[in-house]
Amino acid sequence: MEPFGMMDALGHEQVVFCRDEASGLKAIIAIHDTTLGPSLGGCRMFDYRSEAEALTDVLRLSRGMTYKAAIAGLDLGGGKAVIVGPRSSKSEAMFRAFGRFVDALGGRYITAEDMNTNEQDMEFIGRETRWVTGRSPAAGGTGNPGPVTAWGVFHGLRGALHHATGSPSVEGRTVAIQGLGNVGYGLAKHLRDAGAELLLCDVNQQSVERALDELGGEPVEGDDFYRAPCDVLAPCAVGGVISARTIPMVQASIICGGANNILDDEDRDGQALRARGIVYAPDYVVNGGGIMSVNGELRGESRDKVLADAARIYETVREVLGRADREDLTSVRASNLLAEARIAAIGSVKGLWTGKV
Amino acid sequence: MEPFGMMDALGHEQVVFCRDEASGLKAIIAIHDTTLGPSLGGCRMFDYRSEAEALTDVLRLSRGMTYKAAIAGLDLGGGKAVIVGPRSSKSEAMFRAFGRFVDALGGRYITAEDMNTNEQDMEFIGRETRWVTGRSPAAGGTGNPGPVTAWGVFHGLRGALHHATGSPSVEGRTVAIQGLGNVGYGLAKHLRDAGAELLLCDVNQQSVERALDELGGEPVEGDDFYRAPCDVLAPCAVGGVISARTIPMVQASIICGGANNILDDEDRDGQALRARGIVYAPDYVVNGGGIMSVNGELRGESRDKVLADAARIYETVREVLGRADREDLTSVRASNLLAEARIAAIGSVKGLWTGKV
Repeated sequence: MEPFGMMDALGHEQVVFCRDEASGLKAIIAIHDTTLGPSLGGCRMFDYRSEAEALTDVLRLSRGMTYKAAIAGLDLGGGKAVIVGPRSSKSEAMFRAFGRFVDALGGRYITAEDMNTNEQDMEFIGRETRWVTGRSPAAGGTGNPGPVTAWGVFHGLRGALHHATGSPSVEGRTVAIQGLGNVGYGLAKHLRDAGAELLLCDVNQQSVERALDELGGEPVEGDDFYRAPCDVLAPCAVGGVISARTIPMVQASIICGGANNILDDEDRDGQALRARGIVYAPDYVVNGGGIMSVNGELRGESRDKVLADAARIYETVREVLGRADREDLTSVRASNLLAEARIAAIGSVKGLWTGKV
Repeated sequence: MEPFGMMDALGHEQVVFCRDEASGLKAIIAIHDTTLGPSLGGCRMFDYRSEAEALTDVLRLSRGMTYKAAIAGLDLGGGKAVIVGPRSSKSEAMFRAFGRFVDALGGRYITAEDMNTNEQDMEFIGRETRWVTGRSPAAGGTGNPGPVTAWGVFHGLRGALHHATGSPSVEGRTVAIQGLGNVGYGLAKHLRDAGAELLLCDVNQQSVERALDELGGEPVEGDDFYRAPCDVLAPCAVGGVISARTIPMVQASIICGGANNILDDEDRDGQALRARGIVYAPDYVVNGGGIMSVNGELRGESRDKVLADAARIYETVREVLGRADREDLTSVRASNLLAEARIAAIGSVKGLWTGKV
């Protein structure tokens, strides 16, 4: 494990190893790129098998946040934190110690909920630092960003439809949704309201029944999701579901969902989808409503402003897919290039002297 | 290389890997313990053969600074930084990038000159952060801490004499000094003024001749320094000089000098000296005037206050050597225990609520 070697390869600015003996805290904070603004990304907790595994995870995730914030048009950089250990080792002291390390970075890293961390943990962090966001309304935050994410995915899906068919209208289109949590259910509702047909799928059968009752549509199960005869597949649950195994099953012409890391292997699966003529709207572009919500909370923006920004994912998806076609790139590669170009351009603007000495 | 494993073993709070692609900066900042106050320690530059070697060095050095500051009675913790690379890669941009990383730690780490870094480098760092000290008078600092260090070594030597002989007086005592730089020459002058006989040694023959002209005394060369028939050996040049090879040569009853890491192997050589009945005044206690000078600059203390503090190294050395005898410990072990006890005690006081909400 060579931190500088990995930082070189992925382009990181700073990696901070934090340890508090009294509470047992061991955390790594990775700050990938702060050209656009302070780095933001969730703090997950996981019982990694090794330090190298924890470092690899936090470096990879923080880099992803740089691209997500940049393509969302936000003034944020990419960061992420991991706390090493089992959930059973959680304590107030541990999260407050973590909060003090976050605070000592003076705002260069802003934290939030993530895998295995919750509102209560953020509340403890928030007693030690103001650099925590995505907090509950009770704690002065705007709460769950899921509804904004769902609104953004809906508009991203309209953008993908426009690109593929010439019209953004979802009326009469069939969309299969995998995962009926905050984002998937919200997306289903927006689609139903706009006249789409729904195929609904969730590991929890009660969630499916509730959604069918409230929204209508048909259930699908297991691999039938991938084989569904429909226009759009929308994975909104776990990552890695579009893979060498499932791509041959796909009949839809578009994949566009709210889950993170939908592709099992970004390059290989992106190319396979392109070869089959299936339009893939990059997940991190499509689900950018979440970071917009958190950004809005940080900057005190109105809910209307945040929702209007999320609706603009429609245009971003069209731009990304257009560039992918023009330059014969995977859509992820195209959106990465757009994100990198924005970072370089804004970095240049920031180099201009503004009269302060 | 497992950073957390090494941090566990040595008791570190925080290790920060810093990278700036444009200037080529790669630096590690290690913050060992901030119980007493902000961590302070120099920034050295070295072309390490591996990342693991750089990390090991910065962890070891920062831990040493915790003990040095604690035994000196200062409100400072231990820190250190290493910039990885050859001196030929130095640039204004590199040190300013480093300064920005120091600044982003908000004062948890305060930097200073060290091996292969100089006043010019600190000046560049100081354009980006106020958390740099030990600066030149031209840059608003108090300049070279060498004279304060020499004054502290002189009083530490008096403490060791008092412990070994019952009297602190250096009059008529013979002291062999290795290294006639700022500290060694300053020590020689204080000793001569107080009536001691001098044996002087330096790799630079001109330095020896100048000192003999100005202060009197006799020259010694090479291994004759270790064999010198005298009361005190005062290594004030490089580290590692008191070793399994040189200890059998020693005729003096006291070793007390201003160099860092005088013992080649702290445990082995400390025990060998104890077995031979030779009093060793721990280097990091004796040369604490340097950090007192830097601390005084940080806090705006008068020169008189700083010199009075350095003179109190006399009492500290007596306390350390007394404890070592009472508990049959090496003197380094005794001073480590005193430093740890002070950190624990002040840490407890800091836990008291003071009425602010």
